[in-house]
Amino acid sequence: MYSNVRIVMMNTSHPGNIGAVARAMKNMGLGELCLVSPKSFPDIVAERRAAGAKDILANARVVDTFDEAIEGCVSVIGASARGRKIPWPVMNPRDCAAKVREFASLSSGDTGQTHQNTVAIVLGREDRGLSNDELQRCNYHVHIPTNPEYGSLNVAMALQVLAYELRMDYLLYSSMGDASQAACTLSPEDSGWDEALATSDEVEGLIGHLENVMTKTDFFDPDNPRQLIPRLRRLFQRSRMDKIEVNIMRGFLNTVVKGISAK
Amino acid sequence: MYSNVRIVMMNTSHPGNIGAVARAMKNMGLGELCLVSPKSFPDIVAERRAAGAKDILANARVVDTFDEAIEGCVSVIGASARGRKIPWPVMNPRDCAAKVREFASLSSGDTGQTHQNTVAIVLGREDRGLSNDELQRCNYHVHIPTNPEYGSLNVAMALQVLAYELRMDYLLYSSMGDASQAACTLSPEDSGWDEALATSDEVEGLIGHLENVMTKTDFFDPDNPRQLIPRLRRLFQRSRMDKIEVNIMRGFLNTVVKGISAK
Repeated sequence: MYSNVRIVMMNTSHPGNIGAVARAMKNMGLGELCLVSPKSFPDIVAERRAAGAKDILANARVVDTFDEAIEGCVSVIGASARGRKIPWPVMNPRDCAAKVREFASLSSGDTGQTHQNTVAIVLGREDRGLSNDELQRCNYHVHIPTNPEYGSLNVAMALQVLAYELRMDYLLYSSMGDASQAACTLSPEDSGWDEALATSDEVEGLIGHLENVMTKTDFFDPDNPRQLIPRLRRLFQRSRMDKIEVNIMRGFLNTVVKGISAK
Repeated sequence: MYSNVRIVMMNTSHPGNIGAVARAMKNMGLGELCLVSPKSFPDIVAERRAAGAKDILANARVVDTFDEAIEGCVSVIGASARGRKIPWPVMNPRDCAAKVREFASLSSGDTGQTHQNTVAIVLGREDRGLSNDELQRCNYHVHIPTNPEYGSLNVAMALQVLAYELRMDYLLYSSMGDASQAACTLSPEDSGWDEALATSDEVEGLIGHLENVMTKTDFFDPDNPRQLIPRLRRLFQRSRMDKIEVNIMRGFLNTVVKGISAK
């Protein structure tokens, strides 16, 4: 995914949260973690919570100040809860992801080379988030909409939501993304299905076969057809059958015919 | 938010995950939790992780089987990782939220009364998710797109993402939701801003004032205007100033004029 996104954690108290953030980052395809004066790091608790994302912890940079953490970034996005005295321009996580994509696709420099426009996403302290001073150093704020009666989101959960939106946006809208991975309703019509779609005439073949066998079993009376065949056609055409499903049904019907003939 | 969504956790091993799910549920406005044969519940570890969402744990229902958990539900959505032998229709979390909204807005029954169409969202075991048998009992599968190289999402993180999408969808699209809470880019044009937007002529008044003062200070030469005024106009009109900002700037300019006259 994007290589220009840096996750910054301010003064994290619980090493478990650092591990959970690392795991969420790797799950969503992010890699760069910067820790500003964490209470305890490295820490075995962080490593356990990171599970298969220990490499993110191993590569994490530890710095002393906010300034060092955002050095070289073209844009700084701070995670913010509600209720600041002075409202600041604030995005929801979805708009935040679109904003990051904008920066990722920017190129700059006289050489015409693509320059990596690093964007920092800054997560606050567990107990009191980012300070007003830090928030005013950000170009944008991102706010995750929460239940007004209980808005206290765990820091790793917040990162999980932000990183999920980055991944969704990347898959759906980035020229480098693969929209099929966002897995909008998978049906036999999609490339991820395991069997080829039955053609319309194969399905018609099945319906004809069914009509024939139902007539043989006296279930269907061609002189009084009512709406039986249209109903079957609607069912089987609607369900977008694959070739194996058609073959299974026709194989079954063949056994029914054999069974009747043998009587 | 929706009162017709039931979160079901299958055979959870780590009570911490139950607590984290409860917290994520309450953060996003969900309330109904059903636990199928958890390894340990109630448990102090779950309570600690639940933080301010202990009420969700206190009201959680514990049952023995999948069937009991989904009883009375009109639709069952199972959280699924990739790579099943038989692909099943699968949605991403965003489409899942839209699907839940559909069910929430359905009414049924001869009386014309709104009937609560409960939808279950079923989360699998920490180590191996839902069984094939359980997945085939679901009407839909929901899959969170992850890094193909590390797709192992913690169960509470998965619920956080699904519940976040439910909330976003509810705020943005439900007739009961309040879209302003989804906090798309807040600017002085939005109702959440603290001061009234300056009118266009107030901003023009500022620009005229500025031009006047800049001429007085010999910064601006009306006989050689270049693009100075258009650039100022573009800046101040673009930033959608509020009334106080205009007043601040004009107050400042007045002090500049006084300072010059006093010389």
